[in-house]
Amino acid sequence: MSFDRLIKKIVDTQNPTVAGLDPKLDFIPQYIIDECFAEYGETLEGAAQALYQFNVGLIDALCDIVPAVKPQCAYYEMYGWQGMRALKDTIDYAKGKGMFVITDGKRNDIGTTMEAYAAAHLGSIKVGSNQFEPFGGDALTVNGYLGSDGINPLLPICQENDKGIFVLVKTSNKSSGELQDCLCPDKTVYSLMAEYCENWGKENSGEYGYSGVGAVVGATYPEQLTELRETASHTMFLVPGYGAQGGGAADVAGAFDKNGLGAIINSSRAIMCAYKKGDYTEKDFAKAARDEAIRMRDEIVSYIGKIRL
Amino acid sequence: MSFDRLIKKIVDTQNPTVAGLDPKLDFIPQYIIDECFAEYGETLEGAAQALYQFNVGLIDALCDIVPAVKPQCAYYEMYGWQGMRALKDTIDYAKGKGMFVITDGKRNDIGTTMEAYAAAHLGSIKVGSNQFEPFGGDALTVNGYLGSDGINPLLPICQENDKGIFVLVKTSNKSSGELQDCLCPDKTVYSLMAEYCENWGKENSGEYGYSGVGAVVGATYPEQLTELRETASHTMFLVPGYGAQGGGAADVAGAFDKNGLGAIINSSRAIMCAYKKGDYTEKDFAKAARDEAIRMRDEIVSYIGKIRL
Repeated sequence: MSFDRLIKKIVDTQNPTVAGLDPKLDFIPQYIIDECFAEYGETLEGAAQALYQFNVGLIDALCDIVPAVKPQCAYYEMYGWQGMRALKDTIDYAKGKGMFVITDGKRNDIGTTMEAYAAAHLGSIKVGSNQFEPFGGDALTVNGYLGSDGINPLLPICQENDKGIFVLVKTSNKSSGELQDCLCPDKTVYSLMAEYCENWGKENSGEYGYSGVGAVVGATYPEQLTELRETASHTMFLVPGYGAQGGGAADVAGAFDKNGLGAIINSSRAIMCAYKKGDYTEKDFAKAARDEAIRMRDEIVSYIGKIRL
Repeated sequence: MSFDRLIKKIVDTQNPTVAGLDPKLDFIPQYIIDECFAEYGETLEGAAQALYQFNVGLIDALCDIVPAVKPQCAYYEMYGWQGMRALKDTIDYAKGKGMFVITDGKRNDIGTTMEAYAAAHLGSIKVGSNQFEPFGGDALTVNGYLGSDGINPLLPICQENDKGIFVLVKTSNKSSGELQDCLCPDKTVYSLMAEYCENWGKENSGEYGYSGVGAVVGATYPEQLTELRETASHTMFLVPGYGAQGGGAADVAGAFDKNGLGAIINSSRAIMCAYKKGDYTEKDFAKAARDEAIRMRDEIVSYIGKIRL
């Protein structure tokens, strides 16, 4: 259990970014929607097919230059179990193309219930004499509000399957401070959570200095990113909030260590919807996504330089 | 938006309890599993069918005496999208039998992503010219670690559809205090979260004194239950931890107001697996569940007396 597989992919591609796959219908080119509705009707099945076709186009365009994708569960659940099937198919497709898959579910519970989430998203499940991977991502985002009872059930499943988790620490939204910035009593809730991440990861250290227990820290809080990079030095960061939410490359520079490791920066809408800007047509959505992914990579790498193991 | 529908059902049945539907295969009578494997194979589809058949039996046995069911998403996700279909079918079946459905997902995110979860579990979604309820529960459990940005997107959807949410406040597990009991700086994290619940519910008050923003407070912390009943007086409590986790009827008595309102106590395993104790056979699982539900109801009502609007 560690993020070594992800780190190696980041070094291979020299690209510390992840493309968010949040495919609501509003983001999908109309011609894809029309094709899927023609075949499956204006149904949840039709919508789910459009999600999947859009993702396939994006993954094909990105898989040789971007190390990872991050499907956001909410946008699949929104289309019912049919949408969840599109999530599973998307994860399979991305893995088939060699990408590392971070399932963004922010799941949380305790004991055997958390074990069930772990099996669902990172492990496998026995049915009679057969074994299935229900969703099969490489990492899962989780919420640590419930304490160790909510995290410990994940660790053996991560260990067995060489997978990781990212725990919410300091999220990118404006109101994140309502709870996360509270002093309790001499440190903030987010720095306490980061300490827990260091502890939870202790038994699961990786070859490159980072454990399998990462943290979500928003690009919109550059000071906290820099502070946490110092204090949580074995914790890999997943950084949302770049682009659409206002974080820039300078803001995320502090998330990286001196080798350019330790963080992966997410962009969702700016990549998915790149075709809506500039001179692209709908049919160019994949090329537009690739162009934006390259622009983002180059911008971030200009701050951190060559990424080294 | 409020819990008035739930409160009315509690009064009608004189039963302030909810039956958790956490149907892992280990809990399901073998004859149901055998039948489903015979028809669908030892597959996720076969497992999902067994989940659904088990739930149908439980719902039939409970629907006239128990006001609500609480399916735990993790146990459905564990069986892939096929399991999520069983969740949808279970919710539809329970609603058809007149039960109030609390979807236990502990979902959390921000902005449009949280709107997507709200549509998935409490609202509806437009696909072309059609409108669908992806899962269609009556209430959803959520995690407030991200602050108001994670809760506000739920409120209009709850308002429009007369639905509610339960926010994690003080959870039933042993390690819940690692974060929730921290002093920040002059009150605990859980009491701060309870204050937020009171605020989030302000615009959405119900006829019987409780808003549509409830709180999850564990039966295993009776002192905190009593304290929070005082301080969060418009917040309905969903109380896990009764039975298998060690909370008893005396422990939950403090969760109720003087009219016996203000809380609903969950029991999952003790009801689902009642047939594994005593003189029942597998085929009696539904009767055993009903017997245990009646025993639990009577035990709790013996502490709180007649429930009045």
